[in-house]
Amino acid sequence: MSAFLTPTLENLTPYTPGDIPRKRSILKLNTNENPYPPPTAVVEAIRAASEDLQLYPDPNCLALRKAAADYYDLDPDQILAGNGSDENLFFALRAFCDSERPLAHADVTYGCYSVWCDLMHIPQHIIPLEKDLTLDPARYHGLNETIVIANPNAPTGLALPPEAIGEIAASNPHHVVIVDEAYVDFGAESCVPLLQEYKNLLVVQTFSKSRQMAGARLGFALGSKELIADLERVRNSMNPYNVNRMTQAAGIASLQCEGYFRETCRQVIETREWTAQELIRRGFTVTDSKANFLYVRTKKMLSRVLFRALRQRAVLVRYFDAPRTEHWLRITVGTKEQMEVLLQKLDNILKED
Amino acid sequence: MSAFLTPTLENLTPYTPGDIPRKRSILKLNTNENPYPPPTAVVEAIRAASEDLQLYPDPNCLALRKAAADYYDLDPDQILAGNGSDENLFFALRAFCDSERPLAHADVTYGCYSVWCDLMHIPQHIIPLEKDLTLDPARYHGLNETIVIANPNAPTGLALPPEAIGEIAASNPHHVVIVDEAYVDFGAESCVPLLQEYKNLLVVQTFSKSRQMAGARLGFALGSKELIADLERVRNSMNPYNVNRMTQAAGIASLQCEGYFRETCRQVIETREWTAQELIRRGFTVTDSKANFLYVRTKKMLSRVLFRALRQRAVLVRYFDAPRTEHWLRITVGTKEQMEVLLQKLDNILKED
Repeated sequence: MSAFLTPTLENLTPYTPGDIPRKRSILKLNTNENPYPPPTAVVEAIRAASEDLQLYPDPNCLALRKAAADYYDLDPDQILAGNGSDENLFFALRAFCDSERPLAHADVTYGCYSVWCDLMHIPQHIIPLEKDLTLDPARYHGLNETIVIANPNAPTGLALPPEAIGEIAASNPHHVVIVDEAYVDFGAESCVPLLQEYKNLLVVQTFSKSRQMAGARLGFALGSKELIADLERVRNSMNPYNVNRMTQAAGIASLQCEGYFRETCRQVIETREWTAQELIRRGFTVTDSKANFLYVRTKKMLSRVLFRALRQRAVLVRYFDAPRTEHWLRITVGTKEQMEVLLQKLDNILKED
Repeated sequence: MSAFLTPTLENLTPYTPGDIPRKRSILKLNTNENPYPPPTAVVEAIRAASEDLQLYPDPNCLALRKAAADYYDLDPDQILAGNGSDENLFFALRAFCDSERPLAHADVTYGCYSVWCDLMHIPQHIIPLEKDLTLDPARYHGLNETIVIANPNAPTGLALPPEAIGEIAASNPHHVVIVDEAYVDFGAESCVPLLQEYKNLLVVQTFSKSRQMAGARLGFALGSKELIADLERVRNSMNPYNVNRMTQAAGIASLQCEGYFRETCRQVIETREWTAQELIRRGFTVTDSKANFLYVRTKKMLSRVLFRALRQRAVLVRYFDAPRTEHWLRITVGTKEQMEVLLQKLDNILKED
């Protein structure tokens, strides 16, 4: 920290991303990346877009937003493209909250919500999950506050049905309800069909997980034209050229590869369910995850110890060292072969202990 | 605007980027893009990086920052990579200004400074350029405020010598002086060598202009380790994965193509000087631009009318409709062939008038 930093940021604690190992031999199950590569058409689209690099990208991402409009059956003006869904969520918090308009969110959820609030001095109304880590929608009824809900939630993987989100939107008609659907394609149900009914609903999706494009940085915010116009106002006041040429082209190509998308999602779900059963067979507690990760604990070993033991054996998983999460580990679902390696290492660690 | 937008953003006027024409036949001299493509090594680096797209980029951009450290003879901790230099400038304003810590900047300069201040409720101390559009450094001495100076300035193209910037930094020791060097490679002198001496100096550079990478979105902020740590704090609180895989690789490749970089800069400068002479020969007033654009006016026709006449003839230039800029046009320097087309169209328009 320099002597020049504004005092209003002195106590800010930035988000800590999962480790990026240098060695490729490490089994990386810590940042919920997809184990499959993107379809060939995406790689080809990037290669084609690498020509004309001296020209700015379209700041309005029009071709991409039109492709997305076709895909989601929305109007292009109902879609905003961001440099990852993190950027879209940031735009949304900037647009719909301020130092006198708080954000309501769960205590155990995506860590960036809290960091963004701190950065923008937005008060937080933190609503605890239930003892079993489920989110009780009733706690969000009639809040009269801007709300963000990750659905499925991270790191628990637990999902609400769209009807429950719809009821939350209906009972907070004067505030925006943001649904962060980063993991929705792995078995939960999207709230996009609810957008027609609820003008205060904003759905955020990402290409980083189910679409194998974490390296390209692309996310969408989907909502009423009015909400998206608000986000555009913030985007154009921050970084109008926020999505580069290659990523715009890759996004269009990805939306055209529906078969590959569905098949790779199916494989991740199948591997998740198989791994969950194997873990349960070994005495682990496993939440009913609808995401591309499992949230697990075992009474045989402290999670913090197990996390380190796995790391020593070249397996990276995610451990969140906070009161309600310290007993758990979040494990990304890889290929079945990768999960077999994970299980073997777990067996070795728990046997040695 | 929706009913949900925070009232603190109601009066915000976003930045308006230059038009992106759909037809490739249009001569695009409105956003200061480089007329030459990036070197082959950059395109190849992007193609190589399009593999492994399912993995997140390195959030710390370590390989890129190391390459930049070698290039600038700095430490990697003195370098921050952003999604375009706009993002780095935004981080800097967020770090060093707030609602009680104003930003000082010229009245005629890059339009985003003012937009970012409005978005973050940072008071602006707007300091007029002199009548001849030069910036008098004495007006910035002892301000006791955070300062941003575009050097060369846009849209005037006029540059200060580094010594003048150094004196401004020396006379404002308790505040950060940001030097926006977006156009520095076209004939002005960089303040990077001053970083050792002035711990309150922050230099921002971009790959969009001299490095032919506007489409990839990459910029650097360069300064003391302490200043860069402040920016990293903001970056990691906003969007830790802000620079995608392809762009990180492209940046490294670009820094290794010094010969191509120097030669294309030389060509742009040569074409700028030739075009300036041709315009002066036609009675235009032309500032002594050290950037890859010319700032021009003619008594023969209103700039707004000339702008429209050029557009009708498929030539896009930039016209800023504000009191001090309404008599001028900003024209990007393209290839000599492109500038010949421009001159021919200007001749036709002024002959017809």
